[in-house]
Amino acid sequence: MKLLRYGPKGQEKPGLVDAGGQIRDLSHHVPDIAGDVLSPAGLAAIAALDIASLPPVEGSPRIGPCVGRVGKFLCIGLNFADHARETGKEPPSEPVVFAKAVSAICGPNDDVEIPRGSDRTDWEVEMGVVIGSRAKYISEAEAMDHVAGFCLINDLSERRFQSERGGQWTKGKSHDTFGPIGPWLVTRDEIADVQDLDMWLDVDGERRQTGNTGTMIFGVAELVSYLSQFMTLEPGDVISSGTPPGVGLGMKPPTFLREGQVVRLGISGLGEQRQTMVQA
Amino acid sequence: MKLLRYGPKGQEKPGLVDAGGQIRDLSHHVPDIAGDVLSPAGLAAIAALDIASLPPVEGSPRIGPCVGRVGKFLCIGLNFADHARETGKEPPSEPVVFAKAVSAICGPNDDVEIPRGSDRTDWEVEMGVVIGSRAKYISEAEAMDHVAGFCLINDLSERRFQSERGGQWTKGKSHDTFGPIGPWLVTRDEIADVQDLDMWLDVDGERRQTGNTGTMIFGVAELVSYLSQFMTLEPGDVISSGTPPGVGLGMKPPTFLREGQVVRLGISGLGEQRQTMVQA
Repeated sequence: MKLLRYGPKGQEKPGLVDAGGQIRDLSHHVPDIAGDVLSPAGLAAIAALDIASLPPVEGSPRIGPCVGRVGKFLCIGLNFADHARETGKEPPSEPVVFAKAVSAICGPNDDVEIPRGSDRTDWEVEMGVVIGSRAKYISEAEAMDHVAGFCLINDLSERRFQSERGGQWTKGKSHDTFGPIGPWLVTRDEIADVQDLDMWLDVDGERRQTGNTGTMIFGVAELVSYLSQFMTLEPGDVISSGTPPGVGLGMKPPTFLREGQVVRLGISGLGEQRQTMVQA
Repeated sequence: MKLLRYGPKGQEKPGLVDAGGQIRDLSHHVPDIAGDVLSPAGLAAIAALDIASLPPVEGSPRIGPCVGRVGKFLCIGLNFADHARETGKEPPSEPVVFAKAVSAICGPNDDVEIPRGSDRTDWEVEMGVVIGSRAKYISEAEAMDHVAGFCLINDLSERRFQSERGGQWTKGKSHDTFGPIGPWLVTRDEIADVQDLDMWLDVDGERRQTGNTGTMIFGVAELVSYLSQFMTLEPGDVISSGTPPGVGLGMKPPTFLREGQVVRLGISGLGEQRQTMVQA
């Protein structure tokens, strides 16, 4: 299934996209695409509905982030060997983990803000892993049972805030709108091989990133198991699993986003995003 | 006012502590000590209640974390010059910011887990700043208007996970129960000078940390203003403002927590916590 949230910011309703591409309203059946709705039982209950009987949503509503009430927004750094090299670093021996502020989450096609004082706002196409059930000290073999599905994420960064403002990366990763998520939460059953999805990102129509989830250093199951050794993963937590080569920081010369530019990105099976850059 | 949340884990009810130390039930007036209840208007509505008419809570219920639905759990590293030195680092020129997982939050007297494979679980008494209203790009002069109040926090860490497991600190700061918060959210009006509060922490009755919020490098107003340049602070966000000297990592030799040990800590006006260490 392709689940989504539509409507004005902060008032999103739950919905799904049917086989014909029509958005249908789920709000009479579930309160949100969040929490327990993401559990195996919650997803099974949606799958059991008669899709054709769900009210079609008229017009072209705004699409919100595909997961509500995200508790933790975790990211994996340098998880593609080629990307690690373009940043001048060796591929890590175990996953590099950092956190983005949940207030950075926005819809897939919302405007993205360039922070005040920023001259190094950068893009990163990533695959998000959405947790469906509580995971603590789980093995790699058990990990996928705790995954509700996958989504497209642009993990935006301000590189100076990230690296030149003292210490940890959180400062450069957390500006409002630095986490477009969606359009859809695509449930696990719909993705044949999560480690073989094409990824791409364009800036003003020019291809900047090309990759495939097959070249991730640490795969989804390994990441979920690994993170669960350090903290309990909960329904609605989102893990952004790292970016392939082609970020602005790695270009020669380094090239960053400017007001008015348009970023488009996609992952096969997970849909596309389109953001216009605006000044904060 | 001293606001708190009491009852079993995950089912906490809102309450307050009256002048006589009696817990009284607020659940007929507010849904939780969270979100909009923390706004100036929300706190004013509670302050206008006839306290003596609120139902007293019988017995000695468990005390939960004093804030519900925390969105961001931000921490300031090395914010006391003496503590920076004991870790072998220079005092930072601007605040060091990192994030703890919100799933680490627990009640002030809940058992604290030593993670599996940990031999460096460490303590840190800190003052928490609870955000009451949305703050984005605010000045230092405006900052305190966005603060609902203050609370006691033990910012527990696993030092190897923090520093020897690749990259960012989040891994070592986020284990379940690594964020006891409370007992009370003490509203701002009740604290005469937030930069003059005594802090202390004992392990098995031996004093380990002694400090005062007056020696913070970056004060509360500066921290709130600073963070709001990087992300929007929202009602219920908690900022742990750093620890004074005396952590286990700084002892000679370094000394860490073991199963069965008891940690007690307090800040003047903000109450006390007591945790027994258990093995995860």
